[in-house]
Amino acid sequence: MKILAVREVTVPIGAAMGNASIRFDAMTASAIAVVSDRMVGGKPVIGYAFDSIGRYGSGALLKARFLPRLLAAPPDALLDAKGIIDPDRCHRRVMANEKGGGHGERSVAVGLLDAALWDLRAKIEEKPLWRALADRYSRRDATGRIAVYGTCGHFRDGEGLAHLGDEVRRAVDAGFTRVKIKLGGTRTAEDCARIEAAAKAMNGSKWLAVDLNGGLEPDIVGDWLRHVEPYQLAWIEEPVEPLDYSLLASFIKHCQTPIATGENLFSWDDARNLLRYGGIRGDRDIIQLDVALSYGISEYLRVVGGFEAAGWSRQRCWPHAGHLFAAQVVAGLALGAHEAAVDVTLPYGGFWDGTDIVDGQVSMPSLPGVGFEGKANFYRLLAPLLPA
Amino acid sequence: MKILAVREVTVPIGAAMGNASIRFDAMTASAIAVVSDRMVGGKPVIGYAFDSIGRYGSGALLKARFLPRLLAAPPDALLDAKGIIDPDRCHRRVMANEKGGGHGERSVAVGLLDAALWDLRAKIEEKPLWRALADRYSRRDATGRIAVYGTCGHFRDGEGLAHLGDEVRRAVDAGFTRVKIKLGGTRTAEDCARIEAAAKAMNGSKWLAVDLNGGLEPDIVGDWLRHVEPYQLAWIEEPVEPLDYSLLASFIKHCQTPIATGENLFSWDDARNLLRYGGIRGDRDIIQLDVALSYGISEYLRVVGGFEAAGWSRQRCWPHAGHLFAAQVVAGLALGAHEAAVDVTLPYGGFWDGTDIVDGQVSMPSLPGVGFEGKANFYRLLAPLLPA
Repeated sequence: MKILAVREVTVPIGAAMGNASIRFDAMTASAIAVVSDRMVGGKPVIGYAFDSIGRYGSGALLKARFLPRLLAAPPDALLDAKGIIDPDRCHRRVMANEKGGGHGERSVAVGLLDAALWDLRAKIEEKPLWRALADRYSRRDATGRIAVYGTCGHFRDGEGLAHLGDEVRRAVDAGFTRVKIKLGGTRTAEDCARIEAAAKAMNGSKWLAVDLNGGLEPDIVGDWLRHVEPYQLAWIEEPVEPLDYSLLASFIKHCQTPIATGENLFSWDDARNLLRYGGIRGDRDIIQLDVALSYGISEYLRVVGGFEAAGWSRQRCWPHAGHLFAAQVVAGLALGAHEAAVDVTLPYGGFWDGTDIVDGQVSMPSLPGVGFEGKANFYRLLAPLLPA
Repeated sequence: MKILAVREVTVPIGAAMGNASIRFDAMTASAIAVVSDRMVGGKPVIGYAFDSIGRYGSGALLKARFLPRLLAAPPDALLDAKGIIDPDRCHRRVMANEKGGGHGERSVAVGLLDAALWDLRAKIEEKPLWRALADRYSRRDATGRIAVYGTCGHFRDGEGLAHLGDEVRRAVDAGFTRVKIKLGGTRTAEDCARIEAAAKAMNGSKWLAVDLNGGLEPDIVGDWLRHVEPYQLAWIEEPVEPLDYSLLASFIKHCQTPIATGENLFSWDDARNLLRYGGIRGDRDIIQLDVALSYGISEYLRVVGGFEAAGWSRQRCWPHAGHLFAAQVVAGLALGAHEAAVDVTLPYGGFWDGTDIVDGQVSMPSLPGVGFEGKANFYRLLAPLLPA
């Protein structure tokens, strides 16, 4: 088989909202289609992928560097022994002559391509992606059922605590038992009010978590922890800037609540430094590297393997992202849990059409590959990429 | 004043050579021109910049994200109190709504833009860039004269020790007293032979350094150091991968020779981790972050300030790059030394036309800005960017 073309479209996300670190008004993401010469049911098999939100579309870099390398490779050099596209071999090709370090942006472009190649491969194998991954990496503990949590509570102009409570209530009504909300990190009283509004809407579940997006003001840390720890949150996410491991370690020293971090680290090189210097605790803390933003599956397996070698369970790995590809990876590699945007009317919210969230868990559909075809409002985004 | 346009051209570097980490056959770099509405001598004042070599051109990212932000800003928001373009204010604009972490690629695009804005600003002030920087940052120790060293000894097919010796000899004949050569890092005997061939060509100078580009094989480190330390090299550069601070610290524990590193770290966030965890020694080691690859002057000042706060002298900062912008920054911020590619026939080799290297030192020319106009083979690269 061979790859005939790779198409990209940049999608404006343009949400009038923000977190403690950035606003999303001008945010973009890329969708790509890897078109192969394999035919199934009279149609070419196409692998799709969509960026995780937050680091902007990666089409420019893909076109400038990575797609030309992929398309210049001898087709056979990209296949496994069975003649099926091999994402790992593709990865080595597209990363040729790239220097070490500097793990940002290119990790997004390469990760997006990897995700599409895995969708393609699983479709050729006529398996859901999670099953293709579980088979490839011998995960007998992969069941096709995953724990999920819902993310909400972004900051939108003119919205207050009532809106926050409503959003959390809708998530709980939809079946989420774990919900994460955004906090500002600049005023303890305001953050506590948000936690209380959300907790009231949780319908008795204790699984409320908060996300600071690296924005907790160093000056208020002591006061903030004194007020927030008694809420017994499920976790506190990204309390400090992603690369300040020493500050994280000192935060953790004063914090009993689990912490979650890693969505802004994009390689095993960086995750290893988090492990070595961040003071993180294998009995409770949560590692959130995003598979698609971090070069894809092969690099993510280095991360998981590195943490396991240090005595951690892969159950402590909860990838950032919120998209269907990430859900398949969580299922296929038997990871801890999957993050989801709770608004199913968004192309990148919720799950496949008709998916029920039951007791905070979701079953993978039987669609081949990632199954983008089974979420109508997402599949519409892919229209510009489809063959005429 | 305002910025009328920013133009970019991607230049194939296409050198048939390599170091221990990558080959350069398909390497690219970007040149940009920031065109202002200021007129001097009947012509618009234009700021130029050219990428440091090694991380590929940054035009794609500039066009996708950073130039639109710059050009959308109200012109006055980009000026200082005197009404002159202010690179720091521009930096804050173009980095709006960028998440923390992931310091690669975008740092190259933003750094390139920053370099061109500084060229523009200095030209409007009718000063050489080094003088504009020294005035802006009150560096009374800036003399307009800098120490330089020559980099050579890349791996080219069919070239052996005789070529290496010739290249080093030409550098010494040109006035360099400090020369750095590339090593492979996989076979001790081969590396020693290269060191001896180069040392013989040094005409008695003891300032020979070696660069491993992160490629020293972990298995041979002990044997390699036993054989290499007796040569009393000026420094050993990038012995290990850039983000493995723990491995670097253990290397340094067994190494008396100064080490140099940092060209593959692109932010103060990362440099701070090198400082905290890398075991580096303020009495001898050399910090090589590249100004233009690392978001530009404002971020570089955070690096220098951070090292000074830890008791280091800014004389330990020797930026990677080899281009004229870096030479101006070394002079203007009174840093330790400047790296130069020794082949003046290359657009990115040597210095301004007519520059003499005397006892390993170079005097800045009186040209305004960076002075690209004073190096003919480089200025030709800019031709596609010039106004019709």
